[in-house]
Amino acid sequence: MAETYRIGLDVGGTKVLGAIFDGERNIVHRLKKKSTEQGAEAENVEQVIINVVEELLDSSGIPLDQITAIASSIPGVIDQNAGVVLFTPNLPWRNYDIGSAMLRRFGVPFFIGNDVNLGVLGEYRFGAARGFRNVVGLFVGTGVGGGLILNGELYTGNKFKAGELGHMTLDPEGPLCGCGKRGCLEAFSSKQGMSAYIRKQVSRGRGSLLAKAVQEGVFKSKKLKKALLAGDAVAMEAVDRACHYLAVATGSLINIFSPDLVLYGGGVVEAVGDTFLEKILREVDDYCMAEIRSTVELKNASLGDDSVLYGALALMEEQA
Amino acid sequence: MAETYRIGLDVGGTKVLGAIFDGERNIVHRLKKKSTEQGAEAENVEQVIINVVEELLDSSGIPLDQITAIASSIPGVIDQNAGVVLFTPNLPWRNYDIGSAMLRRFGVPFFIGNDVNLGVLGEYRFGAARGFRNVVGLFVGTGVGGGLILNGELYTGNKFKAGELGHMTLDPEGPLCGCGKRGCLEAFSSKQGMSAYIRKQVSRGRGSLLAKAVQEGVFKSKKLKKALLAGDAVAMEAVDRACHYLAVATGSLINIFSPDLVLYGGGVVEAVGDTFLEKILREVDDYCMAEIRSTVELKNASLGDDSVLYGALALMEEQA
Repeated sequence: MAETYRIGLDVGGTKVLGAIFDGERNIVHRLKKKSTEQGAEAENVEQVIINVVEELLDSSGIPLDQITAIASSIPGVIDQNAGVVLFTPNLPWRNYDIGSAMLRRFGVPFFIGNDVNLGVLGEYRFGAARGFRNVVGLFVGTGVGGGLILNGELYTGNKFKAGELGHMTLDPEGPLCGCGKRGCLEAFSSKQGMSAYIRKQVSRGRGSLLAKAVQEGVFKSKKLKKALLAGDAVAMEAVDRACHYLAVATGSLINIFSPDLVLYGGGVVEAVGDTFLEKILREVDDYCMAEIRSTVELKNASLGDDSVLYGALALMEEQA
Repeated sequence: MAETYRIGLDVGGTKVLGAIFDGERNIVHRLKKKSTEQGAEAENVEQVIINVVEELLDSSGIPLDQITAIASSIPGVIDQNAGVVLFTPNLPWRNYDIGSAMLRRFGVPFFIGNDVNLGVLGEYRFGAARGFRNVVGLFVGTGVGGGLILNGELYTGNKFKAGELGHMTLDPEGPLCGCGKRGCLEAFSSKQGMSAYIRKQVSRGRGSLLAKAVQEGVFKSKKLKKALLAGDAVAMEAVDRACHYLAVATGSLINIFSPDLVLYGGGVVEAVGDTFLEKILREVDDYCMAEIRSTVELKNASLGDDSVLYGALALMEEQA
């Protein structure tokens, strides 16, 4: 009998990662492609997904009939059971039954999961969160995403919409968030929030190595790392502020969940993770009950850019 | 065969409620006793519990051998499986194996649960939260307690310490909370928080019908109701502020859990519940995502003072 494989995809607003897993959960082939600019047609993103799957098969020499399942993350609100994308903020899909479309195209089961949920699930099954029963995951990137493992299972809530931990209000009079509210965790601690802070300081005449990067958008995580290493004062302030509010949010989440683990991941943590974790650890005790704090661990994710791919693998294993 | 009964107890810092349930889950007898003042000996509270059970049996004429189980709420941190009270802020129990002591005394299984958890569980099995799969419960009394039903089960987290929803930080620079942190939900929205606000206004020379009540402690919920009906401006401000922060917290909890229901209970809600709910409903949309808000209901508890007793019944049914 020929060996069988599974394909995991990580579909983002700007790129698609793809990987072929063998039966021992090793990634035997991988691929990265630009997906689309904001506002592009749904069909284009879908075509990129199809291209990634086909290129993975071509370059690996593995025929489609040895693939048993495909799973993909989707950056948005989905119906995981039905395989339907309900809404994505950065991609033009509304109530789109991508599961059925892909099943028709490739003839194998196609599963979807929310991207941050899959990141936490990947770390829970195969990474730093393995063996912890209750896990609160905070993923810091352009935004701040969240994922919850409760009683050993991904908690998705009503209509798979749970886990918007980046949109806890930490200061009702705080800075405006992309979601329209004020003072969300994301407004302080994401790349967007940090970039807005740096932009404001620069507009007041202060210098920063990130001045140009934040002029119109958000800095790249690697550039933040460089600025911190160079002792950029404004960048450090932005990080201190981000970590302060991450500590406040973490404290509340500890009081709410009494988790076994709070896990930090995402592009920013990937780039400057130890700095973040140290600062959060220095403050978090001030924002939760000692009795509950005493039984929770805080640490960084371990699978890096592959956490979502491994989450897709976990999803296929659970649904199989 | 003789009918069998179960006894539920609601042990608070100042009173113990007891009830005998028949096989159809009707309360056939009930009793209320003062428990103890703060700082009294553990043995005294235990003696009060024993007295309540014995008086329930005496007054009902039901013999002990027709009782199949006893369950009690405990206001504090417990090990629900082991029947051990780990810590209570208002009672002098530390690592106390009350389960075994009561089993020895009465010869029937004795279960314990955290009081707010049992309140939410009672409402979930037999009250306003019946039929909802994911429920966030907020109980407003002297403090603000929380309870979580997730995927149809009471979520207790690591060491049964989850659900401290009253100690979410809503403003890191806010008023001091009893837990030692600043700006917790409880510091704004509990009777303690509202009393502190009224006390401050009175100290600034403003008049309030609750001035005397808050001089040294917290007002009684019924007095708050009277003051509101009389149009007491300071009391109304305290309630507006309490409801504002309940709305902020509710918004964050909706974004975190995507629950099917947010349930409000406790002494204050029991007394002035509709006022609270209306004010919360007016503001909550400003603090959560419309996409998630659209599938969650907000309402008041329905079992009143009996919610914890019914939670104790549910606990016995689950453990049976």
